[in-house]
Amino acid sequence: MVEVNFVIGIDLGGTNVRVGLVDTHGGLMATNQCPIRAEEGVEAGLGRIFDLVEKTFAASGTARLAGIGVGATGPVDPRRGFINNPYTLPGWERVPVVARLQERFQVPVRLENDADAAALGEYWVGAGKGVSRLYAVTVGTGLGTAFVLEGEILRGLDGAHPEGGHHVLDPSGPPCYCGARGCWESLASGSAIARQAQLGVEKHPDSLLLSLASGDAGRIDTQIVAQAALRGDSLAKSVVEAAAEYLALGIANVVSFFTPEVLVLSGGVMNTPQLFLPAIQAALQKHTVVVPAARVRVLPAALGDFAGLIGAAYTVVKTL
Amino acid sequence: MVEVNFVIGIDLGGTNVRVGLVDTHGGLMATNQCPIRAEEGVEAGLGRIFDLVEKTFAASGTARLAGIGVGATGPVDPRRGFINNPYTLPGWERVPVVARLQERFQVPVRLENDADAAALGEYWVGAGKGVSRLYAVTVGTGLGTAFVLEGEILRGLDGAHPEGGHHVLDPSGPPCYCGARGCWESLASGSAIARQAQLGVEKHPDSLLLSLASGDAGRIDTQIVAQAALRGDSLAKSVVEAAAEYLALGIANVVSFFTPEVLVLSGGVMNTPQLFLPAIQAALQKHTVVVPAARVRVLPAALGDFAGLIGAAYTVVKTL
Repeated sequence: MVEVNFVIGIDLGGTNVRVGLVDTHGGLMATNQCPIRAEEGVEAGLGRIFDLVEKTFAASGTARLAGIGVGATGPVDPRRGFINNPYTLPGWERVPVVARLQERFQVPVRLENDADAAALGEYWVGAGKGVSRLYAVTVGTGLGTAFVLEGEILRGLDGAHPEGGHHVLDPSGPPCYCGARGCWESLASGSAIARQAQLGVEKHPDSLLLSLASGDAGRIDTQIVAQAALRGDSLAKSVVEAAAEYLALGIANVVSFFTPEVLVLSGGVMNTPQLFLPAIQAALQKHTVVVPAARVRVLPAALGDFAGLIGAAYTVVKTL
Repeated sequence: MVEVNFVIGIDLGGTNVRVGLVDTHGGLMATNQCPIRAEEGVEAGLGRIFDLVEKTFAASGTARLAGIGVGATGPVDPRRGFINNPYTLPGWERVPVVARLQERFQVPVRLENDADAAALGEYWVGAGKGVSRLYAVTVGTGLGTAFVLEGEILRGLDGAHPEGGHHVLDPSGPPCYCGARGCWESLASGSAIARQAQLGVEKHPDSLLLSLASGDAGRIDTQIVAQAALRGDSLAKSVVEAAAEYLALGIANVVSFFTPEVLVLSGGVMNTPQLFLPAIQAALQKHTVVVPAARVRVLPAALGDFAGLIGAAYTVVKTL
């Protein structure tokens, strides 16, 4: 009888933790999720993760657990196995998640930044399957990037995660918490889109945006902006167009720096790719003189919300 | 008796070709150079290169020639061994320089883009010796970039050479031949500096710039601007400051995308690093929130004009 190996992939975000049972070919066999409630403390959070892992692995029957991969909202320290993220996981500083999972489950455990994990998932069994150079851009509340070169994550000095989302695109742009003005995230992320729309309705109170938000400008988010733009609202359309231009310019910059075979787009903002892809294609056509930008394939992510946990599982599978 | 191996490194620029005799530890034993005179035709140019190789190798005495590495002004096709550069080598389209050198000297021959070759030289025995991640920025007439990861050049799709020098820094900037507006090269290269100074003297004919150029604005180049700035000329200082800000911003962007251990600066503009390094250090201090930018070592190139031919030799040595 052949022993079947399964791996657990964990996607730990600022709001929810998702756990998946993944086979060694990248097949997702079972998933569970729950709120992480970081503010209730590290021990409570780890307890919730342990319970989810047990519940999810139970679906495997008699298989052997070969290891656990974690993709966590950064900053993380993959080499030391620490989560170090008081920004979106309040109180989670220097949390030795790798050691704690190893101790509990007695298997190899690996940790990655969530953007890197999602990129690895798309490389393994998603939109960039097996390509030599895969660049991944996640446009959600923030704007995250990852580069997978021959199946390996590109890291920076001391294992740092490079943050292409904070490269400066327009020095006359808005200030960002990163210290710069006009970085990509400040101009093209979901937060940037929502902020521009919220500012816009002050001058255009008749915009569809305000009625879709039940009259409360503070409730305008990316989904509402996208919905209003698709229905032809002129303010929403102009906000989307401006963000799409900056998104496209940032992608052209990625292409200048990396010239990857495939660039994968994911995240909530990309739920309506038709609003953004034309600007991206136009920008790439304009940047073909010195690099073959028109040959870069820009693709929506194939694994959706599961890219992170599948990629986290891959970090273990590739060591088997 | 131990047989000594030497390698020939060739640095083929738009104006001159330089040939060096390099030992297997990166020591430069002899060099020769001559004008390439590309416009006199490919055969005449190749003849000049062959003659220089023979003359230079003769200095080795009885050693064996182990191979030849060529770093050539791009575009080149390293995989097929073609120089394909009608831009700075008029008439040199699809020139099979690798095959021709192999045929003539009966040794292995390798070809690289000149920016990549120079970066490899700095990695092998220069300012970034042995570092895991070395980013090289050459600021001359243009602005070239190269990334050396664990001793290997980062290439793009189909072996393309990424062109970080053409990433957009300021969409309100000047148009560039690359198709973009406000790319790094258009704002911070030697050409950009000279152009800004030439425009500036129209309004400030009393500037020291004009007298250093014997009254001919068209003769103002980077060296004259640097000289005038060092002597306190206010127009020259403002041109240098603006270019230094953009140079620094582009370097901060490189750090956001790559976070290398070492960033090496070379090229004519960097002959006066004291005019540019303070702005670069200030920019990196401002970008330390999301990446450890302050820990990136920004260093002047150590091999000067010989980085290209030493790096070209390295492409062969590492295969021995």
